[in-house]
Amino acid sequence: PAANLTTQAIDKFSRYHCNHQMFDDRQCAAVHPVTGRCVMRSWVVSFLLVCAGAVDAQSLQFAELGECELESGEVIERCRVGYRVIGERNTAGDNVVLFPTWFGGTSEALVEVMAGGLVDTSRYQVVLIDALANGVSSSPSNNAAADSEFPVVTIQDMVDTQHRLATEVLGLDSVHAVVGISMGGMQTYEWGVRYPQFMPRLVPIIGSPRLGAYDIALWHSNLKAHEWFRSCQCADAIELMDAIGVLIGSTRGKIMADTSRGDVLDDIASRAASSPLSVSTSWNTTRQLQAMMRHDISNSLGDTMSAAADTLVAPLLSIVAGTDHVVVPEPAIAFADTDDSQVLVLDTPCGHGAVRCVTPKIAQAVNDFLDTPQ
Amino acid sequence: PAANLTTQAIDKFSRYHCNHQMFDDRQCAAVHPVTGRCVMRSWVVSFLLVCAGAVDAQSLQFAELGECELESGEVIERCRVGYRVIGERNTAGDNVVLFPTWFGGTSEALVEVMAGGLVDTSRYQVVLIDALANGVSSSPSNNAAADSEFPVVTIQDMVDTQHRLATEVLGLDSVHAVVGISMGGMQTYEWGVRYPQFMPRLVPIIGSPRLGAYDIALWHSNLKAHEWFRSCQCADAIELMDAIGVLIGSTRGKIMADTSRGDVLDDIASRAASSPLSVSTSWNTTRQLQAMMRHDISNSLGDTMSAAADTLVAPLLSIVAGTDHVVVPEPAIAFADTDDSQVLVLDTPCGHGAVRCVTPKIAQAVNDFLDTPQ
Repeated sequence: PAANLTTQAIDKFSRYHCNHQMFDDRQCAAVHPVTGRCVMRSWVVSFLLVCAGAVDAQSLQFAELGECELESGEVIERCRVGYRVIGERNTAGDNVVLFPTWFGGTSEALVEVMAGGLVDTSRYQVVLIDALANGVSSSPSNNAAADSEFPVVTIQDMVDTQHRLATEVLGLDSVHAVVGISMGGMQTYEWGVRYPQFMPRLVPIIGSPRLGAYDIALWHSNLKAHEWFRSCQCADAIELMDAIGVLIGSTRGKIMADTSRGDVLDDIASRAASSPLSVSTSWNTTRQLQAMMRHDISNSLGDTMSAAADTLVAPLLSIVAGTDHVVVPEPAIAFADTDDSQVLVLDTPCGHGAVRCVTPKIAQAVNDFLDTPQ
Repeated sequence: PAANLTTQAIDKFSRYHCNHQMFDDRQCAAVHPVTGRCVMRSWVVSFLLVCAGAVDAQSLQFAELGECELESGEVIERCRVGYRVIGERNTAGDNVVLFPTWFGGTSEALVEVMAGGLVDTSRYQVVLIDALANGVSSSPSNNAAADSEFPVVTIQDMVDTQHRLATEVLGLDSVHAVVGISMGGMQTYEWGVRYPQFMPRLVPIIGSPRLGAYDIALWHSNLKAHEWFRSCQCADAIELMDAIGVLIGSTRGKIMADTSRGDVLDDIASRAASSPLSVSTSWNTTRQLQAMMRHDISNSLGDTMSAAADTLVAPLLSIVAGTDHVVVPEPAIAFADTDDSQVLVLDTPCGHGAVRCVTPKIAQAVNDFLDTPQ
């Protein structure tokens, strides 16, 4: 316990300085061999003394990847990917589950989801991974140059950096599964065609192999609202985004049942007031929006979903919500048909909020699928 | 035929000068007793000669109402209401149907709807009425002062001006029915509580006795988008409105069936490019949005729908679309329950586009109801 306390204190210090962008990378003396975090010059000795001990598993760590070459040919310099680890790796090292973040989400937010039992962390070691441009991993908001100069990234780029984290930093040559929610589900499908042999199980939850026309219209409206926000830096633009979120986030029936006429504008205003949006974080969101809008696992496969289904060999369980208006279920359902794979269509009034509404049902399906030998 | 040709020529001239705001009201020598249009000084003699003849019934006419006092206490000076008449008034004068416009709609657009048979104009004389702030009747865009100084109006104000048109200009002390679509349906409900004895039939189509929380969130997003448009005067803001329109206008299923991933952004861009929005017309839209957002027929009745139902004595047929996300059907269905009146819930994938999608079914229901003795 004493050793752990010391570790935690150091960890807290290094997180503050290294991870929260309070620290200039050039002062890093080394990259920590386990956590992937930079180690400050003055603390190297201390780290060397204590870092053989336990590290708070859920704390944010970074994989420092050097240069990340993108699908576009552009390069992210001093590329880094944030992640958190929950659960123990077994002796065979074959119980690792990768879990990339959703749109705008962070590995920190995913810790809470894991607490809800979505993946049984007593049996699996889950690596929660911050997707590029989410503000934790390399993003406009932590870019050395101007926010807007951070390159456009793709879902494939997100997956490529995650593969490097898994292989170069975590020393894995395969994992038990990839599971993700929403944009994390898009990355899950992409893993299936980009690294088909790397995992024998894929579980995209309210995700999509490619966007439907409805999704594209939605993200287009969100992109435009972000343009407005960056020009006005005003609450009105955030309110507009939040109003669209209210309209699309669940279902008309649920809104009409849960929200009174008198309260709805106050609800929107208070959501907007509690939003931490800045020009920098608006650029983060924009780069993730652009990644989603281009997302199509058949992009490099002649745009045919049958070719994508042939490439994706891992057993696949797609979990969708029939009422989802944020990531529409039609493309996932159609792909499961083409791929002859399993699909669970949730019957819920919660639309894209299904993960919060029917957690136990989803957790049961995920864990059953993870437990099935392949 | 010769007399008609002359009439048409004069009518065309007067429409151009009087109705299209090309003409200064102060040059009006008189208000035409039948059409309600201003009559230019130099044309008085000609009009006196020919205006006993037939007038193209569908042409735009104006009721010049002088001052219109609003619910807020503000006054519109030189207040005018545009209208068009289709069909003949019968000898008893009891076959008149009033038909106010939808959100952003004009009496001109309603002529097309009538051509679709929504009301049988061989039996009924339909008066299509331009709602306040629609750009034809008194509106920000034709206001003597700045657009933004045109007062906020309410659905009740719209109905009050229509009542003055009916009584003061058209000489009616009752009508056969009031029928309206969407915001026209909101006005139809308002007629029922504001002038309960004036008509023995009300047919609101995809309208609402008061907005649901969902509607309020929708119009709030639209209001904000108009704020952006007026500050940027850019196509991006119009694209944002059009993207929301795509998301909400019909249903997810219909969009996914009708629109390809590749086409959806082009669709939005071409809608935006063909939009005639200007700062002035954006103010028109904003005033109509504000009117809808405040709409509630129980506003002056203690906010209780049972009091509204007691006040509204006319037989009522509410026609709603179960999938409507623009004017949600829940308030109309709940009111029909309170009022113990008829409601027809359309089963259509077209959402608020129901009037275009299932015209014959709606026309049948409307005309059957109009034909029923009360």
